Amino acid sequence: MNKHDPLKNIRIVLVYPSHPGNIGAAARALKTMGLRALHLVRPRKFPDPDADARAVGAGDVLCNARIHAHLSAALQGCVLAVATSSRHRDLRHDVMEVRAAARDLLVRAATHPVAVVFGNETTGLTSEEASLCQVWARIPADPQYPSLNLAAAVQIFTYELWLASLESAQCAEPEFMPATFEQVEQFYQHLEKTMAHAGFFDPTHPKRLLPRLRRLLARARLEVEEVNILRGFLNAIDKMRR
Amino acid sequence: MNKHDPLKNIRIVLVYPSHPGNIGAAARALKTMGLRALHLVRPRKFPDPDADARAVGAGDVLCNARIHAHLSAALQGCVLAVATSSRHRDLRHDVMEVRAAARDLLVRAATHPVAVVFGNETTGLTSEEASLCQVWARIPADPQYPSLNLAAAVQIFTYELWLASLESAQCAEPEFMPATFEQVEQFYQHLEKTMAHAGFFDPTHPKRLLPRLRRLLARARLEVEEVNILRGFLNAIDKMRR
Repeated sequence: MNKHDPLKNIRIVLVYPSHPGNIGAAARALKTMGLRALHLVRPRKFPDPDADARAVGAGDVLCNARIHAHLSAALQGCVLAVATSSRHRDLRHDVMEVRAAARDLLVRAATHPVAVVFGNETTGLTSEEASLCQVWARIPADPQYPSLNLAAAVQIFTYELWLASLESAQCAEPEFMPATFEQVEQFYQHLEKTMAHAGFFDPTHPKRLLPRLRRLLARARLEVEEVNILRGFLNAIDKMRR
Repeated sequence: MNKHDPLKNIRIVLVYPSHPGNIGAAARALKTMGLRALHLVRPRKFPDPDADARAVGAGDVLCNARIHAHLSAALQGCVLAVATSSRHRDLRHDVMEVRAAARDLLVRAATHPVAVVFGNETTGLTSEEASLCQVWARIPADPQYPSLNLAAAVQIFTYELWLASLESAQCAEPEFMPATFEQVEQFYQHLEKTMAHAGFFDPTHPKRLLPRLRRLLARARLEVEEVNILRGFLNAIDKMRR
């Protein structure tokens, strides 16, 4: 149990994974999203060089993977277990979208272990295994070809868990200095003068030129240095003669 | 151009992919999320049995993949190109989260082709390649190990595109005509020439001037009429003499 980082309380459980490459890719997916706890229920081949190769920098997750003979052992201590699928729909369960399920898992994981359970690549989860989970989470996918690779499904789920963990403490720092109202207005005055000087703008027949340019630059939200660059260019034009 | 299904207007572009397995897994990721258009810029090995094996039921996406010698060819006709990363942070670009970028792409894709660009597994995108994109999309990941597998990154992005397409059943048509890649690049060439002519830009000492201006205008997402206005102004300046 970890009270400070809810991600440490989240187990990713692969039930009967057939391809060791998928186990390695799943380990990598976990680690990219701040997760560490990989549980394997009767993997067909593990450890295996294919798993190591696909794990790349997540060899530690593989090394620390826990192996179990049955799903119930992998779920010991968990207060919530979510079964996943992009295909199956088990009507005996609550069906949620992954995004909502991830938020739910995060809330529970603040104080207790929880698990996300993925079935075998071909056969999915048995009804008995599914009955050990409380929620069925659906990964939205094209109904014409919803066949996600196992590690790809793990990647989407762990990504949603990571986003859910960020949601709470989100703060943005502006990187660049935005230009003030006055700086931008002075630039527009300068632009108008220079365009007139270049014979491109007739102040007696302004038409829609200035409003269009204002609209364009308003979308960009000018920064101080950008206003300086643009005014530098206008100064260079001002020095030219017709 | 496809007016009815915005997903048909979205290209997934892999630049210099090293591992054919990743190309196959990316094809599968596309298809699970309703996408079909895979573009490859100088793939190291393709076609390849590893690509076929990992594509599983998405062999049609592989067969129809378009191969290009340079990224600019893959972006022909696109009105928005989004570069992706979980690592890099290119300060010359607008940085968005994948989720927001996916919504943006969907809106544009209602009427025009758009692209999502993924760099090489190890080296990512060069600055020149990145400069052809208007937005940099970040896949949120654990900063301690943000190293997503290429196909896993494609899976997350396409998942967000699929979610955005489900959301946008009632999205509004854009009011203005966005400029294409070619129109914008021709404008930049003209701008560079005119700035040099005005003595404001020294092509032998370019410094950071052009990247800064690209960054500014990339944020604004230029429209056709705006490009015409700006080029009109450049033409007027070109007629002046120092």
